[in-house]
Parts: sequence; structure tokens; C-alpha cells
Amino acid sequence: MDEFSFIDSIKPTYYRQPSLLKGIGDDAAVFRSSKDIVTAVDTFVEDVHFSRSTMEPYHIGYRALGANISDLAAMGASPSFYLVSIVIPKNWTQAELSQIYSGMDDLASKYHMDIIGGDTVSGKQLTISITVIGYTITNKARYRQHAKEGDIVFVTGTLGDSLAGFHILTSDNENNRYVDQDFYIHRHRKPEPRVAFAQALESLDRVSLNDVSDGIANEASEIAEASNVSIVLRENDIPVAPSFYQFTYEQQYQWKLSGGEDFELLGTVAKGDWAVVNEAAEKTNTQLTVIGSVVEEEKHPVYIEDNAMRKVLKKSGYTHLK
Amino acid sequence: MDEFSFIDSIKPTYYRQPSLLKGIGDDAAVFRSSKDIVTAVDTFVEDVHFSRSTMEPYHIGYRALGANISDLAAMGASPSFYLVSIVIPKNWTQAELSQIYSGMDDLASKYHMDIIGGDTVSGKQLTISITVIGYTITNKARYRQHAKEGDIVFVTGTLGDSLAGFHILTSDNENNRYVDQDFYIHRHRKPEPRVAFAQALESLDRVSLNDVSDGIANEASEIAEASNVSIVLRENDIPVAPSFYQFTYEQQYQWKLSGGEDFELLGTVAKGDWAVVNEAAEKTNTQLTVIGSVVEEEKHPVYIEDNAMRKVLKKSGYTHLK
Repeated sequence: MDEFSFIDSIKPTYYRQPSLLKGIGDDAAVFRSSKDIVTAVDTFVEDVHFSRSTMEPYHIGYRALGANISDLAAMGASPSFYLVSIVIPKNWTQAELSQIYSGMDDLASKYHMDIIGGDTVSGKQLTISITVIGYTITNKARYRQHAKEGDIVFVTGTLGDSLAGFHILTSDNENNRYVDQDFYIHRHRKPEPRVAFAQALESLDRVSLNDVSDGIANEASEIAEASNVSIVLRENDIPVAPSFYQFTYEQQYQWKLSGGEDFELLGTVAKGDWAVVNEAAEKTNTQLTVIGSVVEEEKHPVYIEDNAMRKVLKKSGYTHLK
Repeated sequence: MDEFSFIDSIKPTYYRQPSLLKGIGDDAAVFRSSKDIVTAVDTFVEDVHFSRSTMEPYHIGYRALGANISDLAAMGASPSFYLVSIVIPKNWTQAELSQIYSGMDDLASKYHMDIIGGDTVSGKQLTISITVIGYTITNKARYRQHAKEGDIVFVTGTLGDSLAGFHILTSDNENNRYVDQDFYIHRHRKPEPRVAFAQALESLDRVSLNDVSDGIANEASEIAEASNVSIVLRENDIPVAPSFYQFTYEQQYQWKLSGGEDFELLGTVAKGDWAVVNEAAEKTNTQLTVIGSVVEEEKHPVYIEDNAMRKVLKKSGYTHLK
């Protein structure tokens, strides 16, 4: 199969988004909407961001698009389109490449997203670069800078699962040493971005959101810095999976605070709006946990409390006394 | 410099586009417009699409963005935003990387474009993937499928210059063997997309456009196939630079028909609209040449006439008798 027939093979036979005027097949794609348009790009390099030893090609595609959609969820946007640029080395077969696209398409179809462009080039290292485009209603994009003193800090789902899954896949243990292996591996390979939950917050005038791609220590720090506030997290309230306690204390601590790639949402909202957030979680069947509060800007952006002790939480997840 | 300080160094200190609501610094960028939105992505890999032996880092950035803007020009769109994903190997210095971004920014500033996102990752081979976003007024995107029987076929500028420049840079000749070296090298390193010309056609209801990225044999074929017509080109009318005759007949023939990367515009328009096209060329100081005509769909998409002889022109530039 040459480049053109491969492109033909990934070209959709129909499009799902009514706002699309022109998909793949011209110099560029064209769409039209009166909504606010949200866009981001993320790039994944083989043996840097993923490896064939822990992922099937299908998962590589699924997860790459999932990470991008998670950025849209963190803006409160509904995912609409994606463009895929792929650098293909000689040791990848057409069948494997098709599986990558199949993983993307399966996730895209859940959100009625269309692939509307891309580029296919050769190179030494498999590299997937995805641009996603989504919509929010006017002025409802959710910015990091929207946190305010007195806000509740919440997070969806459980944290640290993705790195736990990666650990299970890469540690040389006997089979079935770990409980809930499939759950953790699934969380690593097929993350589900929290699109429905974020969109169910649409009625709120103000909510700050970040997706947990680099660990909540980092995400909380980004919100605090952008909003000129400080955030205090309560360590014992950070939600983890029921069987997370099978890992060492150090692993748990590191994975839940700085593990990342869980693609959960960390957010802050006014106390008076908490009922709306709670309702959104119930409506979308999303686990929701209060893990801290927003305070007046202090010396450091993020602190973590362990019972009575308050420590500084660095972006990396490292802690130290004030 | 770590990743974050490098990103800080390329983050703009101000934005040029009034439709931008949020640039770099959140999970995604946000913009708003009532116009039709046009988007495309193009990827460039070191030693596949460019080489440091023929380009300074500045040119690599300039040319990569230029190729992308050319896709917008071919849609009749005004360039507005771009996102840059870059894979960085260890042997590239921060200073060289900054020059790549500086090349992009210099071209972007001509069009008041803003960089609104990106990703910076490490890998084995320098790879630049650019997503561009532009606007057209409602229903004025220029599609390949808009050619009609009886249309005039035109092209801007001169063809084959970019490959001639590449030849001058890579052939082991004594210095100054070629006339107009600087012109050809400039055309190779700093292509100027035909944005102003394409936008000056805005009053036309119908014009088909393709940018010459892969040679006019290929571009004409794409228009003919998308429009269910055939195109007849006249070989002797294909415009070349005044000193193009210094190259061998074979080089000339290959470069002007299949050389590509000149980023000129190939188009077709109704005879009755020719005056508007001509005026657009004069207004924007663009060389414009009629090189053929659109005919009813025949067996092959593109033919080329050399005096009385008509041959089939394949996408590759290869010709054969009917």
C-alpha cells in the first residue's frame, strides 16, 4: 500500500458533525459555528510516551486521542474534530498503523468526532501528533485562572491508576500478583476523558478546570498560579481505587500526587455552586471527591495537609516543610 | 533551559488577532468568529523534508509555516492562528530551536498570525508539525471540485524555482556557476504563499484553487479528478524564471511540471471572470499566466500540449502518448 492508498483507507466514508463543510480531500478542512472554538495539540513519540511492550497499536491510538480530548474536557468543550499527523518508520506494518487509527476512531465515535485532516510522512520514530477542535457555548470555556479564595477543590475518579497499570505491565513479577490487574491496565491503556461531566457543568458561570495529565500536584499548582491564589489539599481525601493499598506507601504517594495520565478533572468552584457540581457528577455517573480548598495567595501555590501537618507540595509531587 | 522555560521563551508577549480569547497557557486555546474556519496540518521531518546542509534553522521554521499558510491560501482563507508541535533530538541546541521559531514568527507577523498552542517533546529526529487555522467569508472557501468545462487554467509566479535552488545548494559545482543563484535559493528557503492574491479573488462566486506543493502535474490532476473534468496544459506557456534556461532541458521539464514546493497557486475560473483574476494579480503585484483550459472529462485527468502534440500528463510529471 502506498501513501495515497493508506490515506484513502483512513478517510471516513461519512462525517458526523453537522458544522463540517469540507472534510479530508482538499488543501484544508472547513467548518462553521457560532460557538466558541477550542483547540489544542499533543504529540506522542514511541519509546518516549508509549511503547509496544505495554500497548497494542489500538491502545496507542485510543490513548493519544484520549489525552487530547481530555484537554477539551478541561476547557468544558464538546469534542468535534481532530487532525492526525503521523511519522511512520519502516518497521511498522500497514496493519499495525490501521489499528492505531481504529483505536482513535473508536474513541472518536463516542463523541461523534470527525477526522478532518492530517499528514502521513516517513521517519525514524513513530510519532503521532493530534490536533483536536471542540466547541463551548459563548464564554463558557473553563480557564485555570478562574479559581477564587473560598472555592471548594474537587477531583473526579481515582488517581494514580494509570501509573499503577504501567507498573503492573512493566514490573517483572509473577502473574496475578496484583489484585484488579485488568482495571489498572485498562485505566492506563484506555483512559476515558471526563467530557460528559465537564459539559454537565455548563450552567455554572465560573468553574476552573485542569485535566490530570501530569499529576494533581502540578495541575493544582497551575490553577493556583494562574488565579493568584493558593490551594490546600488534604492528603487523606485524595481518592484512590479500593485495591490501591496493595502498592507500597511510596508508590501510592507518588502515583496519586504526581503520577498523572489518569485524565481525571481537577477543579475549583464556589461553595454556593457545589450542588450543581454534585448533580453533574450524579447525572454522568462520575465519582466526585472534595479534596481541599482555595485560600488567599500564600508563599507557595500548593500545600498538602496530612492530619494536623501542613507541607508545601511542589509541582513534582515532592513535599517539604514551610 | 528546561522544557518549561523554553516554552516560556516562545510564548508571545501579545496577540495580534482580535478573535482570539485565550492563547497559550491553558489546556487549549479559544477563539470566536462568525466566519468559516479553515484548518490543515503539515509535518516536516529532518533528513526527509529538510536538511541542515541546505537550510539554516531559521529557514526550516519559515518554510514549514510557509507551506502550511500556502494551504490556507489555496482555500482563499486569511491565515489567523498556528499551533506547533516539535520533536527535539539531543543534538539540537536551544539557540537553533529558537531560530526555528523565529523563522516562523517572522512569516507569521506578515499575516498577523498568532501562535496559540503546541507541544514540545523529545525524540530521535527533529520533527515539526504545524496546524494552521484561517478564516474565509461565508461560502467562499475555494475547493478543488469547483472547476468547470470551459474554465481558464492559470498559475501564479514561476515554477520549478524551489527545486532549482535545492539543486544549486546540493550539486558539487564550483561557486557561482549558476546565474541568479540567490533568487533560486531564496525561493527554496523562503517561499511566499500567495495569500494576498487568493484573497483578492474574494468577490468571485467560483474559482478552484490548489497550491503547488507537489508540482502542477499533480495539482492539476487533483482539480480535474475532484471536478470530474479534464485539464489541458500548454507546455510552452508554463511560466519559468528568465534564467531558468541555464538548466538542462530534462531538469527544466521535471522541475516545472513535478518539482513542486514553489507554493504558487494553480486555479481555474470562468472566462467571464478573467478580468477579476487579472485585476487581483495587478493589485497584489502577482505574476499571472494562462497555461491551459478545462475540457469535458476525457480518459485521463490531465493532458499537456507541446505545439501540435497532445500527451497524457501523469501526476508524477511523466508523459505518454494517448
